[in-house]
Amino acid sequence: MSEKFHKRVSVEEVEEGSTLSPKFDKNGLIPCVTTDSETHEVLMLGYMNAEALIKTVEEGEAYYFSRSRQKVWHKGATSGLIQAVKEIRIDDDQDSIWLSVEVGGSGASCHVGYKSCFYRSIPIKNKISKNIELKWEEDKKLFDPIEVYGDAPNPTKL
Amino acid sequence: MSEKFHKRVSVEEVEEGSTLSPKFDKNGLIPCVTTDSETHEVLMLGYMNAEALIKTVEEGEAYYFSRSRQKVWHKGATSGLIQAVKEIRIDDDQDSIWLSVEVGGSGASCHVGYKSCFYRSIPIKNKISKNIELKWEEDKKLFDPIEVYGDAPNPTKL
Repeated sequence: MSEKFHKRVSVEEVEEGSTLSPKFDKNGLIPCVTTDSETHEVLMLGYMNAEALIKTVEEGEAYYFSRSRQKVWHKGATSGLIQAVKEIRIDDDQDSIWLSVEVGGSGASCHVGYKSCFYRSIPIKNKISKNIELKWEEDKKLFDPIEVYGDAPNPTKL
Repeated sequence: MSEKFHKRVSVEEVEEGSTLSPKFDKNGLIPCVTTDSETHEVLMLGYMNAEALIKTVEEGEAYYFSRSRQKVWHKGATSGLIQAVKEIRIDDDQDSIWLSVEVGGSGASCHVGYKSCFYRSIPIKNKISKNIELKWEEDKKLFDPIEVYGDAPNPTKL
């Protein structure tokens, strides 16, 4: 699939050119940050392989590569929470993607049920110790994960 | 350094608890997306090791781990473009960080001179081919990289 993209021939062309030549890591993946096109919150940080990036660009809906299931994943296929892509950006060295999306249904993007995967903050200007406590930034889940995903395996791994 | 964090003991505690137990990858890194606290633009996607994360939390200024230089990097140490951290969030499975920052000086975060590293977009609902062209989303650089970085090696690698 990655033969569909231009080869990376020079730093200047990668940074200052209009040639799309994404860099996939050793596992064939590129990280992707996804934000809400209206509220601008960061919803999630996922990964794409070449196939997921191509499908996302061509179809205008977000596809990722699930590292836990080792397959391309059409976001919302199970939950109905499709991400309609408003804009796709790529960074200076073309090794990261930014999607700006509008989320269907309840508007949630997190498998735990929250709107954003980033529902907790780390208190700053505090000494790190085993006692430091995360603070909740969202006060309720937008859906019940058991109702939506049933007994599908949890993607979170220790 | 990572012994300063709690061990990951259960999926439930990682996702639903208030215990900070970040997951670093095989290289000891965790990806970090950084947004502008006022405009909410995504400025960059970087990586932290345990030391960079601890310094960022404790000092309230952004530190990253430079993969090209293989060392902890105080963002803005050379350019003066320090990132003052307003909020740090962590995601559901605690393997990604989100920093919301206020940038000093010209407000730029990209080593190429732009405000955001994501200064180009990929046109959506277009067939991917070698002819697809990136579109410029920022129209001018906020600083001259040669003036600021001189002949320091470019972090972009092919």
